[in-house]
Amino acid sequence: MRLDEGLVFLSDTRTNAGVDNVSTYRKLHVFRPADDRIFVLQSAGNLATTQQVLDRIDRDLSDDGVHQSLANVDHLFEAALYVGGLGREVALEHEAALGPGATATFILGGQIHGERPDIFLVYPEGNYIRASDERPFLQIGESKYGKFMLELAVKAHVDLLSATKIAVTSMVSTASSNLSVGPPYDLGVYRTGTFALDEGRLRPDSPALAELTHAWISHLVDGAHSLPPITFEDLHREGPGPTER
Amino acid sequence: MRLDEGLVFLSDTRTNAGVDNVSTYRKLHVFRPADDRIFVLQSAGNLATTQQVLDRIDRDLSDDGVHQSLANVDHLFEAALYVGGLGREVALEHEAALGPGATATFILGGQIHGERPDIFLVYPEGNYIRASDERPFLQIGESKYGKFMLELAVKAHVDLLSATKIAVTSMVSTASSNLSVGPPYDLGVYRTGTFALDEGRLRPDSPALAELTHAWISHLVDGAHSLPPITFEDLHREGPGPTER
Repeated sequence: MRLDEGLVFLSDTRTNAGVDNVSTYRKLHVFRPADDRIFVLQSAGNLATTQQVLDRIDRDLSDDGVHQSLANVDHLFEAALYVGGLGREVALEHEAALGPGATATFILGGQIHGERPDIFLVYPEGNYIRASDERPFLQIGESKYGKFMLELAVKAHVDLLSATKIAVTSMVSTASSNLSVGPPYDLGVYRTGTFALDEGRLRPDSPALAELTHAWISHLVDGAHSLPPITFEDLHREGPGPTER
Repeated sequence: MRLDEGLVFLSDTRTNAGVDNVSTYRKLHVFRPADDRIFVLQSAGNLATTQQVLDRIDRDLSDDGVHQSLANVDHLFEAALYVGGLGREVALEHEAALGPGATATFILGGQIHGERPDIFLVYPEGNYIRASDERPFLQIGESKYGKFMLELAVKAHVDLLSATKIAVTSMVSTASSNLSVGPPYDLGVYRTGTFALDEGRLRPDSPALAELTHAWISHLVDGAHSLPPITFEDLHREGPGPTER
C-alpha cells in the first residue's frame, strides 16, 4: 500500500507444488544497496524463477563493472524494468524444459532520493504498472479474497498504523479462505524519507497475530448482529421484484 | 446457506458477455410445483444454457406424461440430478456450435415433505455435492471475494436474520471488488417446514441496501481503528525473522 506517510508491505510465506508439497519460503526481500535508496521486492509465481531472479540481483550488485543494478538505476521505474527484464530472462531460459508457465510476478516498492516512494507491479512480460492515487495498493498472488478490505482502507484514508492492521486482516481473511496462503507473514513498513524499513515476522503462534485475528473476527461477528436488519416488509415497500426469467 | 432454522439464498443479477455487453437478469428462481415441495434454483455460467434449462423444467412441469419433473421427484438429491441432467443435455446440444464452455452451474435448494431442507451445488457435468454441517453454505460464480464472511457466519452459529445480513455484506464486498457482480440482488429466506419462500429484491437505489452497506463499511473502518496495533517491538520480542532467501 502506498500512503502519504509511507509504504506498507505484507507477504505470506506459503509455497506449494500441489497440496502434498507445501513449504515455507520468504517472499519479501529488502535491498539497501546505497544510502540514497531502498527497495522491497515481493514475489508470486514460480519459486525457482523467483530465487534465480534474487540471485541475479545480488550478483549484479556484487560484480564491479558496467552492469545495470539496483545500486545504479536513477529512478524507481528503471528498477522495476530491471527486475522485469531479469524475470523474463530467467523464465525464457527454462521455457524449453518447463514450458511458458514458470513465470514470476513481483511488487517492487521503495524510494530513491529525489523521488517520492512508490510501488510497482512487475509483470512476467517485464513491463510494469504503478499504483495510482485512486488505487494506491497492489496485489499479487491470491488477490481476490482480501481486496475489499484494501479498498476500504483507501476510501477511509487511514494512517500507516491502521493500514498495517488492515493489511494483516486482509491477509488473515485470505488465509482462512485458501490453503495456498498461510503464516508466517512478513511485514515491512517504510516511512517516507527514512531509507530504512521496519520489518518483522508474524509467526503462526504469534501472540500479536492471535490477538489481532481474534479482535478482528469478534468485530465482524458483532457487526453481523448489530447491522440494521433487512426485512421483507422494507423490500416489498420498495416494490415487487420482477417475475420474468 | 443452510441453518438450523432454514435456508438463505442470495443472487446478484449481473450478466456479461464482455465488459461492453452487461445486462441484468434474474438468477434466482422459485418452483412450487406441489404443496409438499419447494425448490429454489440459482444459476451461474452461460445465460442461454441457464434459460433453456429453466424452460425445460417448466415444460416438464406442464406436460402430462411419464416425464421426470420437479413435481414427481421423491428426494431433493433426485431434483439435483434432474437439473444436472438438463444442464448437461443443453450444453451438449450446443457444443458443436459453441464449444465446451457454454455450461452452467446451479445451486438447488429447498425442501420436500419428509426430508430436512438442504442445498446442493450442481456441476455442469450433472453431478452434485451437498452442503455439509462443517461448511453449510455453497457458492457459485465469483466465490472468492465473499467467502470469508460466509465462513465467519458459520463459525458464529448465527440465526436466520443475521445470516441474511451476512449474505448481503458478502455480496456487497464482492460487487465492490468485481464489476461482473452487481445489484439488484434477489434475496430468498426459507423457514423449515413452511413450503413458502420470503423473497424480495434489493435494488441499487434501495434504502435498505444503502443503510446496510453504509453501516457495514462504517463498522469495518471502525474496526481498522479500534483493533490492537501491531508494533515491531512486539514482533522483535517474538524473535527475529529469518534472513534466508
